[in-house]
Amino acid sequence: MELFFNPETVALIGATAKPFRPGNQLSQNLEICFGERFYPVNPRVKKIGDRDCYQSILEAPADIDVAVIFIQASQVPKAVEQCADKGIKRVIIESGGFAEVGPEGKALHDRCLAVAREAGMRLWGPNCMGCINVTKQKVLSFLMTMMWQGRFLPGRVSLVVQSGMLSAGFLTTILYKRPFGLSKVASIGNKMDVDEVELLEYLVSEPETRVIAMYLESIDRGRRFLELARSTDKPIVVLKAGRTGFGQEAATSHTAAMAQDDKVLDSALRQAGVIRVQGMTELIDVARSLGMVEYQGRGRARVAILSFSGGAGVVASDIIHDHGLELAKLQPETLARIKQVFPDWMDPANPVDIYPAIEKNGPTEPMKISLEAVMEDPGVDAVYAHLFAPPVKLPLFNYEHMARIMGKYKKPMVVWIMGAGEGAEDMTHELEKRGIPAVDEIGKGVRIIAALTRRR
Amino acid sequence: MELFFNPETVALIGATAKPFRPGNQLSQNLEICFGERFYPVNPRVKKIGDRDCYQSILEAPADIDVAVIFIQASQVPKAVEQCADKGIKRVIIESGGFAEVGPEGKALHDRCLAVAREAGMRLWGPNCMGCINVTKQKVLSFLMTMMWQGRFLPGRVSLVVQSGMLSAGFLTTILYKRPFGLSKVASIGNKMDVDEVELLEYLVSEPETRVIAMYLESIDRGRRFLELARSTDKPIVVLKAGRTGFGQEAATSHTAAMAQDDKVLDSALRQAGVIRVQGMTELIDVARSLGMVEYQGRGRARVAILSFSGGAGVVASDIIHDHGLELAKLQPETLARIKQVFPDWMDPANPVDIYPAIEKNGPTEPMKISLEAVMEDPGVDAVYAHLFAPPVKLPLFNYEHMARIMGKYKKPMVVWIMGAGEGAEDMTHELEKRGIPAVDEIGKGVRIIAALTRRR
Repeated sequence: MELFFNPETVALIGATAKPFRPGNQLSQNLEICFGERFYPVNPRVKKIGDRDCYQSILEAPADIDVAVIFIQASQVPKAVEQCADKGIKRVIIESGGFAEVGPEGKALHDRCLAVAREAGMRLWGPNCMGCINVTKQKVLSFLMTMMWQGRFLPGRVSLVVQSGMLSAGFLTTILYKRPFGLSKVASIGNKMDVDEVELLEYLVSEPETRVIAMYLESIDRGRRFLELARSTDKPIVVLKAGRTGFGQEAATSHTAAMAQDDKVLDSALRQAGVIRVQGMTELIDVARSLGMVEYQGRGRARVAILSFSGGAGVVASDIIHDHGLELAKLQPETLARIKQVFPDWMDPANPVDIYPAIEKNGPTEPMKISLEAVMEDPGVDAVYAHLFAPPVKLPLFNYEHMARIMGKYKKPMVVWIMGAGEGAEDMTHELEKRGIPAVDEIGKGVRIIAALTRRR
Repeated sequence: MELFFNPETVALIGATAKPFRPGNQLSQNLEICFGERFYPVNPRVKKIGDRDCYQSILEAPADIDVAVIFIQASQVPKAVEQCADKGIKRVIIESGGFAEVGPEGKALHDRCLAVAREAGMRLWGPNCMGCINVTKQKVLSFLMTMMWQGRFLPGRVSLVVQSGMLSAGFLTTILYKRPFGLSKVASIGNKMDVDEVELLEYLVSEPETRVIAMYLESIDRGRRFLELARSTDKPIVVLKAGRTGFGQEAATSHTAAMAQDDKVLDSALRQAGVIRVQGMTELIDVARSLGMVEYQGRGRARVAILSFSGGAGVVASDIIHDHGLELAKLQPETLARIKQVFPDWMDPANPVDIYPAIEKNGPTEPMKISLEAVMEDPGVDAVYAHLFAPPVKLPLFNYEHMARIMGKYKKPMVVWIMGAGEGAEDMTHELEKRGIPAVDEIGKGVRIIAALTRRR
């Protein structure tokens, strides 16, 4: 695996300088990442920019660590044979048109695999977007150059995606919405040889990765997958598509994935400590938050809610119940401390509706005092805070203090921000740069707390 | 009800010119909306701006259509008595500190109600943010002036919220995130007299309102509520908090709402055609979309998916299954039309994965041809399209054509945009200004299709 993510020399079979062709983006990416250690191959082209283009991979004047193939499916088996002849041990096929399109494609699949087995070569793909080592800035993918260049932040989260396009979709959302640090990114497509289990094995052992996020349409070696999940303290977040009959039918025509009994799988994943999510944005949000917060869960977490509104506290309580978490029972001392900033007519309880206290004292103090009180309470495992952001930037809360308190008591805290515009953006930024996950939907925040406090 | 939403003269008991006090925002709002027909009352103040401030409501030199009370709870019963003496028939109490804080507050509640019953006066609140007539720009609420001034768009959606703060939270999100047209906004709080049923009755009959969105912690006159829901073809979207034991406990301490059996309620709401949602943002998104699209559902809608990625089609299929919708079976003619833009190796099916067609032909034509084909198919009731937005503005799709086709076949279409940055914002804007709801999460789009196609 390491060689796929960290090659010194790469070739591209299907290099092109024609703009708007995905092969062109691949050529550009490899040129940027590998410079003269990139060997473009295309029998119909003499030059790619200033670089010589080779008629066949056999002519490339170097040992090649990884060859990327991006040509018509029908021509791929021959290209794989030539890679074998050249002694290349790692090949990534990014083209589509294999098992996902029917028997003809399956025949191409089988031919490639036979050649690879014979030659001791590992195959990645087909029907995928290859792999990216963000830490080392090695992009073996047809991801558009303008999307990633100057935008990748090296970090703790690795992402595995069993689909071509989604990798770009996921990455665009990650890089342009609220960037966070990535380590390895893998798009595995039809996984004719390299599969999600082998990647999981690599990411579990690879020291840069601390959080593993996976979008999968099938898990084919379930037993080994679960063993690996149980063996590690790294959180693993999985979006498994094809949960339902509709989805499974769609998955079969997409990446030739086989249908599975989802209920069995779901309970096995849960038992192995895997965090399951239901949508792309949720996978990204949960992974980002897990990348921010280091925390070892104790099981059924007891959550204290600090709410800017009684109603929000009620809705949050419902969703906390839905996710199998507990509402923390606050100790008398905790309630007495909070009571200091409350108006006479109101006694605090969990959810702590801090709005009346804010009417009395302004927002900063009630938030500070309530947060410290619930964080110190031994019956609280995590805090869900609801803040209201006015449309303009206002220093309503002491973010430094929030981060310090969270660090002091080592309990995760997630903030749901209601509001919009500049004020909400600023608040999100101020919180997240201090390692406090901030979300814009109430349910998302509870799912993140559930993920953060899952016992491993 | 009409008089609450459309008074000619208003008074404010608890007017203040002190900045940062909510009473100050109320004074400002009433001054802006009613000018010299606004009568401020406060025994400790002589002037509010240029306007005389009255020692008591009895001194106000005019008949008052609506008096707003925003003073300490303990003093409210006396103020209500004075309103009765003045012959005022509509009073809104925005102060908190009543039934939600215990027996003492309940006693205040009872005294106000006794006075009102005796005087034939209707009471709104307490513990609420009053009401707003967006069409007529009458803001009887302590909503911050800077939040609404110059921002309200008159429109088709009316919003009822049983919570104080949430009204501001909801409204800020609506006004600053993706503004849409509102008609009436009501924050009902403890509903000591005017309740959600009376408001529903009014909104069902009131011609400006076409969509009714409600956030409720309790439905106390359930039978009448359901009758009204069944009687109208206006879509009613409900976020009912306190679904679970946790939430019900929290609701009792918040607005003194009584616990209810949620399962019974849920099935009754469904049968009455009410669209139920689970979060604040979802309530807003669904209401906004319903405000955009006029459509009469036929029941279990058959959805065609046009997806920029096979994987997204799989996940969308799962969520469509979760929501009790159907995946449309496309007719042979439909598939043949789509096949024209597909590569040889791939046959279209539903979900229609248009990415290989885009690789072959660019994005515009495959989208146009596939969309028209599925819209014309008699087995399709609604279309869920997944578009990818690159980070920069690019004219990838013909939005004019999309809107025209949607209008021609009168089938709702929702777009899920994956991507972020300027390109995604632009795409959202281009679609929504043409009446095509656009969402940024896959599940949200399916929930909106489910809401749009619900039979009424």
